[in-house]
Amino acid sequence: MARIVMKFGGTSMAGTERIRRVANIVRRQAAPKPDGTRDEVAVVVSAMAGETDRLVNFAREANPLYDPAEYDVVVASGEQVTSGLLALTLQGMGMKARSWLGWQLPVRTIEAHAKARVEAIDAEGLLAAMGEGQIAVIPGFQGVSDEGRITTMGRGGSDTSAVAVAAAIGADRCDIYTDVDGVYTTDPRIVAKARKLKAVTHEEMLELASVGAKVLQTRSVSLAMKSGVRVQVLSSFTDGDGPSADDLPGTLIVSEVEMTALEEKLDMERQLVTGIAHDKTEAKVILTRVPDKPGAVAHIFGPLAAASINVDMIIQNVGRDKGETDVTFTVPQADLPRAQALLEEHRGEIGFNRIITDSQIAKISVVGVGMKSHAGVAADMFAALAERGINIQAITTSEIKISVLIDEDETELAVRVLHTAYGLDAEDEAA
Amino acid sequence: MARIVMKFGGTSMAGTERIRRVANIVRRQAAPKPDGTRDEVAVVVSAMAGETDRLVNFAREANPLYDPAEYDVVVASGEQVTSGLLALTLQGMGMKARSWLGWQLPVRTIEAHAKARVEAIDAEGLLAAMGEGQIAVIPGFQGVSDEGRITTMGRGGSDTSAVAVAAAIGADRCDIYTDVDGVYTTDPRIVAKARKLKAVTHEEMLELASVGAKVLQTRSVSLAMKSGVRVQVLSSFTDGDGPSADDLPGTLIVSEVEMTALEEKLDMERQLVTGIAHDKTEAKVILTRVPDKPGAVAHIFGPLAAASINVDMIIQNVGRDKGETDVTFTVPQADLPRAQALLEEHRGEIGFNRIITDSQIAKISVVGVGMKSHAGVAADMFAALAERGINIQAITTSEIKISVLIDEDETELAVRVLHTAYGLDAEDEAA
Repeated sequence: MARIVMKFGGTSMAGTERIRRVANIVRRQAAPKPDGTRDEVAVVVSAMAGETDRLVNFAREANPLYDPAEYDVVVASGEQVTSGLLALTLQGMGMKARSWLGWQLPVRTIEAHAKARVEAIDAEGLLAAMGEGQIAVIPGFQGVSDEGRITTMGRGGSDTSAVAVAAAIGADRCDIYTDVDGVYTTDPRIVAKARKLKAVTHEEMLELASVGAKVLQTRSVSLAMKSGVRVQVLSSFTDGDGPSADDLPGTLIVSEVEMTALEEKLDMERQLVTGIAHDKTEAKVILTRVPDKPGAVAHIFGPLAAASINVDMIIQNVGRDKGETDVTFTVPQADLPRAQALLEEHRGEIGFNRIITDSQIAKISVVGVGMKSHAGVAADMFAALAERGINIQAITTSEIKISVLIDEDETELAVRVLHTAYGLDAEDEAA
Repeated sequence: MARIVMKFGGTSMAGTERIRRVANIVRRQAAPKPDGTRDEVAVVVSAMAGETDRLVNFAREANPLYDPAEYDVVVASGEQVTSGLLALTLQGMGMKARSWLGWQLPVRTIEAHAKARVEAIDAEGLLAAMGEGQIAVIPGFQGVSDEGRITTMGRGGSDTSAVAVAAAIGADRCDIYTDVDGVYTTDPRIVAKARKLKAVTHEEMLELASVGAKVLQTRSVSLAMKSGVRVQVLSSFTDGDGPSADDLPGTLIVSEVEMTALEEKLDMERQLVTGIAHDKTEAKVILTRVPDKPGAVAHIFGPLAAASINVDMIIQNVGRDKGETDVTFTVPQADLPRAQALLEEHRGEIGFNRIITDSQIAKISVVGVGMKSHAGVAADMFAALAERGINIQAITTSEIKISVLIDEDETELAVRVLHTAYGLDAEDEAA
């Protein structure tokens, strides 16, 4: 017997036939095991693909400066519908099932409407029902505030809901069914020899998600890491006759302790680098001739932080003229116009000469827990890129990640070069 | 200052532009009066036209023998969306507004999912918010069970929600905005000279609603009568510049006491007959040669009642042969196949010879509180119909209603004949 949370996204829930396929996958998970036991199963669902967009548009048409509390009332209905429909479909297949809406469990969130965060999930009723063999169907993305109003967690929040439910019920595993069948060493559309990883650590997944690997929402990985939830990413395009999720067809995301154990069990050799990610969503900003004096940088980044604009890489060059410096940093492309306006507004305090912006950049990151204990990973990266004439505009590093900023046109070349350089290319069996 | 409940149906809520028109009507009601006071306003809304059908279809596709509790989770979402959207639209016009979902008020219902009945509405929070000038937007059709699950009240239940809210908050009036501008003496599509009634009593409206006048859901009228709620039916096809609902452009539905007062105030002369309704949804069933012995009738109607098939008129003819009789009754056409199957199943106990059915029938009813104190209304009806050769197949009466069953082809003729006979035709001013 295991306790399993399964999560299905909007594409999997789009219409009666697809919901039936999801129900078949759930049935397979809930079926008796060879030893006669059964898993306790909770399913977290997204709204039908396209439905949340439809509801968001209605809310914006009603009031462009919408009240987030009423916005949440409107958009949370999409998941309410699919949770009821999946419960009905499971019942139609002879299973016991019921839906548990955010306010029914309840999923208590901190009241920041439209971007709420889960504070606590009261799992008592849920566990009792699951213990009696009832499959729990839970709408993702939604919760309830202390004031008893519906909250939602921002787009993609259903992954986070699933992990939060898994943490609350002490699930043995949280299976995220998605349109890819696992986490790869890099984007298979760029590198044909990319390999599916059997397992990665939470830390690695967090770094990969934050630098553009779109498999999981960053916040869900961060919550899984904090709560120690074992996550599995696997494809929802299987049918009820395929192998069970217990046979590990996807990618497991686990703690480092379990990773070490898994490596022994699966006879995997740990690579220095686990994966290579790229991210084309950032833009570069250069402020020229900023006075090189204490507090100057605070004048730049204070206003951006106050406006919730996320600054990533920062480089400060020594300027040609004494007492002046150029400051380079990156912000999300979507925030670039706001960032420019804010900087112009604070031109007086900052004292820069010109703003130069560039959206034609890409961030390439190599990620791997293995690099913690091995020097030279960064040097290898710079050497491999230099050999192909790829110019590095900026560098940031963490314990398990090295990111470089390059010209966007060289993205694919850089990813392929690094994938080969770190020995990640698949053997002959991969196309 | 008055406390007003306004209710808008699915056609009025179908899309951003129509919701904006509804918001304009609400704004007019909530605007300051000449004396500087403001009404306290609650608005009850239906789902967008077509949305509930879409959701019902999803639920049926998921599971034709659906669990009503999960069905309710799915279909209640339609009103959740429109209540949020109307609140947003009102806010966008500068009004204070918020949505109150069924489980938030809460609207407590007796747990008969998909046909729940309102048991109690906790109006405390609602009244406090309304007292602070906030417009309350309440999704119709939905409530919450003692078990904390979403319930719905059956199709058309939003009228009932509005009346229940009006009763709970002690509203001065419950305005039902609909696609007709009031209650008429009969169907204006049949009788061009039909007149709009300034007022009718609850009892009259109840009889009219139950015999085919489609203006209001029967249950809502019955609740208004029981709770003493003053209802007004009026057209939603007005704009924000039209006359205010306070100027009585529609039809008021009131207690008999208030009716008497209104008649004096409005200088109305009470008619013996207030309105004429027709209903083509019934089917006639004749069971021939049923043994004329005690308990025979129970054998017929017991199984039908157990299957919730509503039997309306019943006539028992003395048969030609001694000890046998023909039994005639009507059931809703939609239930006819089930009724026939049940009767065949119980043929043994009942002991009839043949089942003869006829769906080509119509029920014509004359309704009026005035007939309580006047004999002869029924005799006039029979005489008027006989004069035009219209054959009466069955008769039922209540204190304020006489219904006859006739051939469906003669429906329009009968309605016109009776409308004239009781002096209901409008003077020259009507077309």
